[in-house]
Amino acid sequence: MAFTQRDFEDIRREVAQFADERDWEQFHSPRNLLLALIGEVGEVAEIVRWQGDSDPAIPADKREDWADELADVLTLLVRLADRSGVDLTAAFAHKLAKARLKYPVERFRGSNRKYDEPPAGEASPR
Amino acid sequence: MAFTQRDFEDIRREVAQFADERDWEQFHSPRNLLLALIGEVGEVAEIVRWQGDSDPAIPADKREDWADELADVLTLLVRLADRSGVDLTAAFAHKLAKARLKYPVERFRGSNRKYDEPPAGEASPR
Amino acid sequence: MAFTQRDFEDIRREVAQFADERDWEQFHSPRNLLLALIGEVGEVAEIVRWQGDSDPAIPADKREDWADELADVLTLLVRLADRSGVDLTAAFAHKLAKARLKYPVERFRGSNRKYDEPPAGEASPR
Amino acid sequence: MAFTQRDFEDIRREVAQFADERDWEQFHSPRNLLLALIGEVGEVAEIVRWQGDSDPAIPADKREDWADELADVLTLLVRLADRSGVDLTAAFAHKLAKARLKYPVERFRGSNRKYDEPPAGEASPR
Repeated sequence: MAFTQRDFEDIRREVAQFADERDWEQFHSPRNLLLALIGEVGEVAEIVRWQGDSDPAIPADKREDWADELADVLTLLVRLADRSGVDLTAAFAHKLAKARLKYPVERFRGSNRKYDEPPAGEASPR
Repeated sequence: MAFTQRDFEDIRREVAQFADERDWEQFHSPRNLLLALIGEVGEVAEIVRWQGDSDPAIPADKREDWADELADVLTLLVRLADRSGVDLTAAFAHKLAKARLKYPVERFRGSNRKYDEPPAGEASPR
Repeated sequence: MAFTQRDFEDIRREVAQFADERDWEQFHSPRNLLLALIGEVGEVAEIVRWQGDSDPAIPADKREDWADELADVLTLLVRLADRSGVDLTAAFAHKLAKARLKYPVERFRGSNRKYDEPPAGEASPR
Repeated sequence: MAFTQRDFEDIRREVAQFADERDWEQFHSPRNLLLALIGEVGEVAEIVRWQGDSDPAIPADKREDWADELADVLTLLVRLADRSGVDLTAAFAHKLAKARLKYPVERFRGSNRKYDEPPAGEASPR
């Protein structure tokens, strides 16, 4: 599902403005925000916890809740990065470059193993 | 901390391309991605678990790990939205509009209570 | 799978002794322990994240890791209760009594809905 | 805080009976239970998210909620172990024995570093 185009920095700024208007910066320490993010991830999990790998994965009557909870996780992640001094766009680019080195296409196509696990049928290096 | 400008849809597309090149779409069901996201949130938590509300919040020698882990959470969140049919930009805008209604500035300035909790000193409506 | 018999208070005492011997009480604030618990839950999630509802649910070569990680979650949960003034045995009994009232057998047999959701086919009371 | 004495296997059995009476075994796959556990951990996090390292750590008016949520985490952890073939008492003993080897008292007293991190002032082996 494509996302509507929007500058990621603009999203950060809107989150910051929402907090500033309410004088909430005092509550927005990294650990507070991390615990709040975990609370939102828990709400995401509650939506799909009892249904196994059903199809559709998200029950039709929970689709708006699901989108709302993902938005809450995004909001807290953006705020957590902002308040802990992380340029999240740059961090994303940096981490993806690392992932390209750890998971070269020719070795990991169709495999879900971790980069330090051997392919099935190879002896483990460990 | 300002984020480098980048279209959020462009981030989604790069995550999708990374997965497609490796034929990982088969593993990227919503519940798989959610459990992977929880694994990454756990790694974020491990960085700051033992230190209380220290200053700086993120130890100097863990700053790159911290940024990397936040980037991993973003990557999985973007992929989870994509694979569960959520336009995350639109969901963010929609949820923020709801939050503006639930948390009007004049009633919630400087308060960390939930929208359905009474201000200190008021009787609870429940 | 039955558990080997052991007094739950004895488990709490052994966890406390392990921490005391290492003078770790200084690190064991409730929020530190909660973040550590979340780190361990993340490691549990990593073991089963990519495999959908496979059978067996836990891959044969990950069974010891799985048991170890569940043990880590138990250890931190016990320590968290201990350090935040909760008699976890009593809290368990108290919560189960509440759950028996919220989920009477005759209304919830075979249903995974929440206690405040209507059965399928009934109009919602909300 | 000491726990009321109770056999841990007896707790497992009571959780299993509660589920059996409601015919809930069908929902209690390991990944379903893990996602439910994460939901409960999220509720624990919500109680202390905004308050930093306050004293008391748990607000007085949230003490019963706190105990209830910890009990929910215990219930789901016990059920998760049961349904994934783990003797949680034995796993606890086994993991604690490993931890005694990884964290010898004389080297880790008063230190919160991980077992594979060097003490402050020593060169890292990595």
